[in-house]
Amino acid sequence: MDEHANHDVLIEGVLNGEWRATARAISIVEDLRPGRVEILARLYLAGRSSSVCGITGPSGAGKSTLVDALASRYRDADERVGIVCVDPTSPFSGGALLGDRIRMNEIVVDPGVFIRSMATRGSRGGLGRAAREVISIVEATGTERVIVETVGVGQIELDIAEAADTVVVVLVPESGDGIQAMKAGLMEIGDVFVVNKADRDGADGLLIEIESVLALRTGQEWSPPVLTTIASQGQGIEELAEAIDTHRQWLVSSGEGERRRRHRIVSYVKEIVLDALATGLWEEGGYSDKLDESLQEIMAGRKDPFSAAEEIVSASRMLESLNMDTD
Amino acid sequence: MDEHANHDVLIEGVLNGEWRATARAISIVEDLRPGRVEILARLYLAGRSSSVCGITGPSGAGKSTLVDALASRYRDADERVGIVCVDPTSPFSGGALLGDRIRMNEIVVDPGVFIRSMATRGSRGGLGRAAREVISIVEATGTERVIVETVGVGQIELDIAEAADTVVVVLVPESGDGIQAMKAGLMEIGDVFVVNKADRDGADGLLIEIESVLALRTGQEWSPPVLTTIASQGQGIEELAEAIDTHRQWLVSSGEGERRRRHRIVSYVKEIVLDALATGLWEEGGYSDKLDESLQEIMAGRKDPFSAAEEIVSASRMLESLNMDTD
Repeated sequence: MDEHANHDVLIEGVLNGEWRATARAISIVEDLRPGRVEILARLYLAGRSSSVCGITGPSGAGKSTLVDALASRYRDADERVGIVCVDPTSPFSGGALLGDRIRMNEIVVDPGVFIRSMATRGSRGGLGRAAREVISIVEATGTERVIVETVGVGQIELDIAEAADTVVVVLVPESGDGIQAMKAGLMEIGDVFVVNKADRDGADGLLIEIESVLALRTGQEWSPPVLTTIASQGQGIEELAEAIDTHRQWLVSSGEGERRRRHRIVSYVKEIVLDALATGLWEEGGYSDKLDESLQEIMAGRKDPFSAAEEIVSASRMLESLNMDTD
Repeated sequence: MDEHANHDVLIEGVLNGEWRATARAISIVEDLRPGRVEILARLYLAGRSSSVCGITGPSGAGKSTLVDALASRYRDADERVGIVCVDPTSPFSGGALLGDRIRMNEIVVDPGVFIRSMATRGSRGGLGRAAREVISIVEATGTERVIVETVGVGQIELDIAEAADTVVVVLVPESGDGIQAMKAGLMEIGDVFVVNKADRDGADGLLIEIESVLALRTGQEWSPPVLTTIASQGQGIEELAEAIDTHRQWLVSSGEGERRRRHRIVSYVKEIVLDALATGLWEEGGYSDKLDESLQEIMAGRKDPFSAAEEIVSASRMLESLNMDTD
């Protein structure tokens, strides 16, 4: 009962936009502690209204500086800002590395800004989902803006792209195979493109390169703008803020925002269902023992993993049946 | 029947070490085509005996050159080599980018070497599993050596580390936040460390840095060696090959190899079980309709995703029971 009461207070705190309650709620969700489902479910029902913007790009593109500049711009308009930094390149270090990242002091001490860094989660494959859940908690605080900053690599981008209304891809005038490769992946998820550090040599060339790659994107109604910024000097930030808003308006008017939201919900429910089934099998259903038996057979080369899995699935269906009969 | 017969031939071809059959089997598995399970299950039962080595590190570390040099070294000893290149930074481009990668000509045309590149898979989160399945097929060909080359970022590393006997982490004398961050993640999965391009400035410093970070690794019986190579000149390759073999011998003598194999099997069976349950629900069980109904409620703010998931799980258990009763 006490625990339940605590969650009431915590949830109310989040909904009232209290950062301390928000940080505590996020920790419960990240660490998969009791109360996680209740918190997420109730905050979910409170609805969402934030503009969620993902900012991604290769390491060294100046994403943090850009995020800070954008946040300052929103603060100037008296909008509250939540910043979530996700670093999938560091699956083991528990976020410590993000700790030595230097943010603009005015952003860090501004009571209108909430900042949270995430680098890992207990289980493999969980960072994307954890990030989406953290974003939903920050949204529930009622901040007008949520900015999600990620290093532009691999699968996490897809998760963030799914959670965000608008994905801003940040590139800098540089070359190299790795960056080329990343660009290829990033070109398809960006709603807005930014050539940052635009005073460097090669900025014009990069701009042209991006536009020519974007010209190959077919079957999409939205034509991503390509902007130039010098984030460290605040140049181009106003135009970026406008492009993000224009994209959001397009999401509404085109129906694409609705479509994305449907897709997001379906994926989320499916994930939760599979989690529940997995927990039911391995933790509650006693199938870990059955798996151990099969393990011996597999190790001995007498059984393959697919046959072992098939046996477990069949047995679970049998047991469900028995359980229902005796209820 | 015909299809089954074809798979017999295909499977026999793989087991006989025919590259064309191997490539076809891999395509069936990658594309999730019919016959996938049969192929994987039967090849699995054929056992594994390859030494599987993962080579990972940041973009620009010279991994491809190192892989080619190592493969040449194995070829000199008349061992057959399978090379699997996995690029998770390119989730959208379907492997096209890896196509312009230039390999040593002698490796590409050597009939004792099988090379396969992977960059994507239909479903999100599937690249790691697909890579592990591709590795298992290459192993079934009976090559003495399998080398898996990946860009050192994020979750895919964990999948490769799980599939490999020995993980070699390749770094170069350079600096930068991104690389620092990657190093932090990579430090914990490496069994052998290589400072490549060791003739560059800063190589000694990097060596000392790696050793000092490794000194912080606790509770592990294996002390990873730190080697220097100049892969482009073949320098240090012999020592690397020896370190990989020493590590593999340690895996056997310490029992760690056995422990890893158990863990690998348990994860794999669990994945297959969850896949089967998901397919049962969404594709065969008709729960997609139920999900659609919930979707409307969720969109309208009258239901949260957790309640929707709970209803589907309960309904599926009920239906299983009815099915069993009427069987």
